[in-house]
Amino acid sequence: MNYVEEALKGNQLAGARLIRLLEEGDPQGIEYLKALYPHTGRAFILGLTGPPGAGKSTLVDRIITELRRRDLKVGVVAVDPSSPFSGGAILGDRVRMQRHATDPGVFVRSMATRGHLGGLSRATGEAVLVLDAMGYDVILIETVGVGQDEVEIVDMAHTTAVVCLPGMGDDIQAMKAGILEIGDLFIVNKADRPGADEVVKQLQVMLEMRTAHDEDAWRPPVLKTVAVRNEGIPDVVDAFYAHRDHQERTGILAERKAKRQMHFFRELVKEMAAERIFGAAEGSAEYDRMLEGLRARQIDPYTAAETLLDQTLGGR
Amino acid sequence: MNYVEEALKGNQLAGARLIRLLEEGDPQGIEYLKALYPHTGRAFILGLTGPPGAGKSTLVDRIITELRRRDLKVGVVAVDPSSPFSGGAILGDRVRMQRHATDPGVFVRSMATRGHLGGLSRATGEAVLVLDAMGYDVILIETVGVGQDEVEIVDMAHTTAVVCLPGMGDDIQAMKAGILEIGDLFIVNKADRPGADEVVKQLQVMLEMRTAHDEDAWRPPVLKTVAVRNEGIPDVVDAFYAHRDHQERTGILAERKAKRQMHFFRELVKEMAAERIFGAAEGSAEYDRMLEGLRARQIDPYTAAETLLDQTLGGR
Repeated sequence: MNYVEEALKGNQLAGARLIRLLEEGDPQGIEYLKALYPHTGRAFILGLTGPPGAGKSTLVDRIITELRRRDLKVGVVAVDPSSPFSGGAILGDRVRMQRHATDPGVFVRSMATRGHLGGLSRATGEAVLVLDAMGYDVILIETVGVGQDEVEIVDMAHTTAVVCLPGMGDDIQAMKAGILEIGDLFIVNKADRPGADEVVKQLQVMLEMRTAHDEDAWRPPVLKTVAVRNEGIPDVVDAFYAHRDHQERTGILAERKAKRQMHFFRELVKEMAAERIFGAAEGSAEYDRMLEGLRARQIDPYTAAETLLDQTLGGR
Repeated sequence: MNYVEEALKGNQLAGARLIRLLEEGDPQGIEYLKALYPHTGRAFILGLTGPPGAGKSTLVDRIITELRRRDLKVGVVAVDPSSPFSGGAILGDRVRMQRHATDPGVFVRSMATRGHLGGLSRATGEAVLVLDAMGYDVILIETVGVGQDEVEIVDMAHTTAVVCLPGMGDDIQAMKAGILEIGDLFIVNKADRPGADEVVKQLQVMLEMRTAHDEDAWRPPVLKTVAVRNEGIPDVVDAFYAHRDHQERTGILAERKAKRQMHFFRELVKEMAAERIFGAAEGSAEYDRMLEGLRARQIDPYTAAETLLDQTLGGR
């Protein structure tokens, strides 16, 4: 099978195989990705994040259905360890998700959350590139929203939704520092539970402070959904596209895309430099002596790193 | 002020200044750290992680008090965006923490969770080295436990506690994939709330599966605390030291320390290589052309990175 040709035609087996090769750090995977690269840059990339228990996976399931109703092909990259996509959670969810398994317009890939040679965010970025080249109109990245790694992952998205739930109370206050900044829209899921309106109000107040001083700024809407009953989903999808339109009008989308590309490039240079440097050093007696000195704390890691770089890169 | 000399004497102003220099990526900071390095490697490094709302900061506060009662000097590195230490949360907590502010045997540093030149885990590692050299017997790293970055941070610890709370129910199931693996002991805080015993039982069942096939394996205890009422804290501290003893007996501690050192070294080489490579390239007409080609998607980032590395490192 010619993986590149087949992936470009949308062959899911070929796409899955390519993503696997990239996850494993197979050099051949990179060669394939180079060939796919000119065909990327067209998809609308959505990020969806929020704490475990917010019902993200049901929400993703419903959003997929709504996007399909609008005749859009949907790729999903799940990097949430508690998501049924990536294999963390409850059997019921897993079964529920099967409904898209037979739809050729939907392709779900889950990322293992540990053990990526080049880091989780690189692996996710590469999976998104493959799905983009395969012709999916929308690519949805699902992640648990807390760590910096997750923030980096949603930084890849053109539009990011943060999922909250009723009864979060003070936790919303606590989220302030990290998550509030990255949301382009907010979804209060399980909105049939008590306390939903309070969370909506809290979010609105805090978001107002964020955007009060800039008239042209996007004002993130706060939407209520009950994903299990399929309520509020079209509004969420409309908000995704409203945000996209705003970003296109203001030129922010092009900016974000360029910034994302540069970030990916810099990370790549770092990874590949390390591969070459350690590849050249490993096995040499000199390098072994250095490691011994490190272990014994006779040499500090900074001096050791400088020495290693002087040998492979030459002085500044 | 001679920062190195003063830090070694335990001068907190000097320590704070050093950590700040390192956070800012100041090259002078690295020079100071090199001088401190031979004095590191003595502290007992504890990790404490768990979801927002689990009461981690109150728990840390009580653990500090208990360690002080045992005449141990305590350093804290808070990398939890929702922690009062790192400035995320509620005023009451912040005030409560002031009690240790006048105790010279306690030193708390909070890490900004974004904007570190060399990444959050490197910055945290360097802060730990400074506190270690300053002579703190125990260094407690507090973090929110979800993302890979956080997992990396607690990987630095010799012993890691995961904080849970009653009513987590299915979320414990969801945590399985990520957090359960990294806990050396588990604390069910707010154990006066309904559902505490259930969470304890759930954890015990899951942990049993983890260690069932290895007789010599450490069996992570599950402890109940009510931090606000100061209940259960001595048992937690005892468990920290029981785990440490077990690790020393089995040789795992030396192994973990060596692994941690290597990881830190590799990250350092990556960062420093990138600094040199981009430092050499930036400003050149050739590099500018490359960036232009990247933006226009005329060149893929892999080929661009290889070209850049060929120029600076030479072929493999």
